[in-house]
Amino acid sequence: MKKASIISIGNELLNGQTVDTNTTYLSSALLELGIPVVSSYSITDNIDSIARCLNYACDDADLILLTGGLGPTDDDVTRQGFADFLGAPLKLDEKQLAKIQDFFAGRNLKMPEKNKIQAYIPEGTKPLDNNIGTAPGIIAQKDDKTFVLMPGVPAEMKKMFEESVLPKLKNFASEQAIVTKKINCFGTGESNIAEILGPLMKRNRNPLINITAGSGIIKLHIIATAKDIKKAQELAKKDENKIRELLGDIVFSTGQQSLAETVGKKLAEKNLTLCLAESCTGGLIAKLITDVPGASRYFTQGWITYSNQAKINELAVEPRLIEKYGAVSEQVAQAMAKGAREKAHTTFAIAVTGIAGPNGSSEQKPLGLVYICVDSNKDCENKRFIFSHDRAFMRARTALTALNMLRLKLEH
Amino acid sequence: MKKASIISIGNELLNGQTVDTNTTYLSSALLELGIPVVSSYSITDNIDSIARCLNYACDDADLILLTGGLGPTDDDVTRQGFADFLGAPLKLDEKQLAKIQDFFAGRNLKMPEKNKIQAYIPEGTKPLDNNIGTAPGIIAQKDDKTFVLMPGVPAEMKKMFEESVLPKLKNFASEQAIVTKKINCFGTGESNIAEILGPLMKRNRNPLINITAGSGIIKLHIIATAKDIKKAQELAKKDENKIRELLGDIVFSTGQQSLAETVGKKLAEKNLTLCLAESCTGGLIAKLITDVPGASRYFTQGWITYSNQAKINELAVEPRLIEKYGAVSEQVAQAMAKGAREKAHTTFAIAVTGIAGPNGSSEQKPLGLVYICVDSNKDCENKRFIFSHDRAFMRARTALTALNMLRLKLEH
Repeated sequence: MKKASIISIGNELLNGQTVDTNTTYLSSALLELGIPVVSSYSITDNIDSIARCLNYACDDADLILLTGGLGPTDDDVTRQGFADFLGAPLKLDEKQLAKIQDFFAGRNLKMPEKNKIQAYIPEGTKPLDNNIGTAPGIIAQKDDKTFVLMPGVPAEMKKMFEESVLPKLKNFASEQAIVTKKINCFGTGESNIAEILGPLMKRNRNPLINITAGSGIIKLHIIATAKDIKKAQELAKKDENKIRELLGDIVFSTGQQSLAETVGKKLAEKNLTLCLAESCTGGLIAKLITDVPGASRYFTQGWITYSNQAKINELAVEPRLIEKYGAVSEQVAQAMAKGAREKAHTTFAIAVTGIAGPNGSSEQKPLGLVYICVDSNKDCENKRFIFSHDRAFMRARTALTALNMLRLKLEH
Repeated sequence: MKKASIISIGNELLNGQTVDTNTTYLSSALLELGIPVVSSYSITDNIDSIARCLNYACDDADLILLTGGLGPTDDDVTRQGFADFLGAPLKLDEKQLAKIQDFFAGRNLKMPEKNKIQAYIPEGTKPLDNNIGTAPGIIAQKDDKTFVLMPGVPAEMKKMFEESVLPKLKNFASEQAIVTKKINCFGTGESNIAEILGPLMKRNRNPLINITAGSGIIKLHIIATAKDIKKAQELAKKDENKIRELLGDIVFSTGQQSLAETVGKKLAEKNLTLCLAESCTGGLIAKLITDVPGASRYFTQGWITYSNQAKINELAVEPRLIEKYGAVSEQVAQAMAKGAREKAHTTFAIAVTGIAGPNGSSEQKPLGLVYICVDSNKDCENKRFIFSHDRAFMRARTALTALNMLRLKLEH
C-alpha cells in the first residue's frame, strides 16, 4: 500500500502560537485519494533539519509533501534543504522568474531583488505554478519516492494542491481505495454513542470508525478500505446505514454540514422562518445561523437583549416577570420568545437566557444555568439545562442545543 | 542550549479530522521554561513507528515529550513502543494498579481487566500520577536524554504536565531563559509592518521577532533569549517599546487580549456604553463583544436586522433611504446606527451593512462591499470598505474593522 508523510517547515509552528492547519487539510485530501498519511513532522527553518527530516519521512512513506519555507526572505531555506537532500544544485527557472516579475508588474510594482531566489529550483526537479502568490512549488522524484514542495500560506498551498498537485496524484495509488465519511451527531455523549455502536467500534475492523467530540457535537469518521473505490463506497454506505439505524435522530448530518445549515435547509424546504432573542449567547446563535450563505431566506432578524431593560423595551417582557422569577428563568425565556415572534412575524422564535459567568450565579441559579424556549404558533417548548465548564463552552453548548431543539421540531 | 521535541501518537491525528492542540500547548509551556521546541512528530499507534520516532527525536533534542496511546485498549501501544526503545521489559507498578482500582471504586465500579495494562511501565522508569483519569504517565532517563510520556486526552495531559512534570523541569534548563511576548496589531498589512520594523525583523537577531496574520489581526511574537530571566525580560521589554514607538496606534494589545476586550476595557474605564445594529455580520460583532466576561457593564443590547423590514421596523430606517440608496449604503448604515443609539440610549452605536455573498452583488456594489458607521452624540464616522475573499473572511474582517474604528475613537 502506498503511504504518505507530511513535513511542515516554519519556526512559528514550534513556538506554541500557530496551529498547523495545513497538515490537517492535506491528511484529509490524501485520504480521499486512497493514500493514508502515516507520519507528519513539524520542524524549524533550518537546512540540516530539513535534509534530516526528509530522510526520516522516507523510512515509511512513498509520497512526501512539504509545506513552508519557500518565501523570499533569508529564513526561507526549504529550497536549499531539499537541494542538499537531493544532492542537486539550485538552478534558475527562467519561466518562473518571468511569472514572479509578472506578479509584481500586475500590481504596478518592480520585483524586489530578494524575490529572484524564489525562481530557483533544484536541478532535475519541476516547478509547480503558484497563481496567487510569488512562491512556486516543486515536484521531484528520487529513487522510488515522490516529493512535493508547496508554500506554507494556507490559501496558496490549497490552491496549488488542488490545481497542480491533485491531478498528478490521481493515479498515484490507483490499486487501493479509501472512502471516508463523516457522520455528525448531537444529543448524547461520546461514550454513550460508542456503547450503542458496540462491535462497530472494534479496532481491527474494516471500515474503521473513529470518534471525536467538541461542544456537544460528536463526529463519527468511517474509514473504509478496499481494492477499488466502488467496493470502499459500498462498505462505507453499509456502515452509515447501520449507524443511522442505531442512532436515529441523534444523527443530524453528514460531511461538512453544520447544525445551523441542517436547520436552515429544513426551514427553507418548508418555507418557514425564524427569529432570535438572545441574552447569554449574545449573538452567537445568530452568528451560526448567518454563517450559512442564503440564510436570509429563512432568518429575518434577531435581538440581543443583554440588559433587563432591553428585554422589556424590545421584546415586551413584563417587568414583574423579571422581578418575580429573575431574568434567568423559564418565564422570561418564554416571554422573550413570544415577544420576538410577535414583532418579527416568523414561524419560529428561539429565546435563550442563562448565566454564562464568571459572575451572576447564586445557590438557586448556578453558573451554567440556561433556559431555552422554542416558540411557534403551534406550541412552545421550554427546557432547562446546566452546562458546566467555562464561559465559551457554555455559550457554544447553549447555542447548539437551541438549534438542535428546533431541528428536532422540524424533523417530527 | 537544551532543546525539546514532542511526539504525538494516535491514528486520529493523521486522518485529517483531529487538530493536535497538545503540541501547541506544550510548545508554549516549554518555551516559558526556556526550552525551545525544535521538532514535533505525529505518528500512528504502531510499536515500530514509536520506537523509530524516539530515535529521530534524539537526533536534535535533550527532552522528549510523548502524548497519547496510554489508554487501556488494544490500539494503545505507546507503553510497549517505549519499552522496546529502552530495551527494558514492562513491569507491573502495584501502587499505580491500586490507584486505578481506586478510580473505579470511587465510581462504584469494578476495574475492568483491560485497565490493568495501564499500570505497567518499563523497568527502570518512574510513573507520573494521573489524578483525573486512569492512564498514569511515565518519566525516564536514557543516556543524556529525558523522556516524559503523558496521556493524549488534552485535559488529562495538561493537569499531569502542570502538577507532575512542570516541577521536575524547573531546573532542566536553568542556565538559559527565554521570554516571549505577543503584540497584537490591527490597521495595516503584514508586509507593511515588516517594512516599518526594518532591522528588528532580522533573522539572526536576539530577540527574534516572528509575524503571523489572520483576518486582519497581525501578531508579533518577540522571543528573547538570555542567561537569566531578568536579562531576557529586559531584552523583550526594550523591543516592545521600540515596536510601540514605530507602530503607534496600530498596536492594540499584548498577550491574549482580544480586540473586543481592548474596546470593552476602554468603555468600562470611561463609563461609556455601546449598542449594535448588524446586518451582514449577523450577530458576529455582538458575539465578539459578549465573549468577554463582564461585557454587560458596557454592552446593553443589539439588533440583527437581516431583512429590510427589520431595519425599518426596529431601527426606524426610512424606507425611502433603502429604495433610493439600497440597503447596503452609507445612508442606511448611518440611519441604522442613529436608530439603534436612540432606542438603546448608549454613548456609541456601531452599524454595519454589506454584501457577504455569495449572492446580492452588482457592478456598482461588488461582493465584499461594506459600510460601517460608528455614531455617538459627538460625531458620526462613516467608512466604506471592499473586503475580498469568502463570506467567513469578509464577515470576520468587517467585525474587527468596526471594533477597531471604535477603539481608535476611544483612544483619541
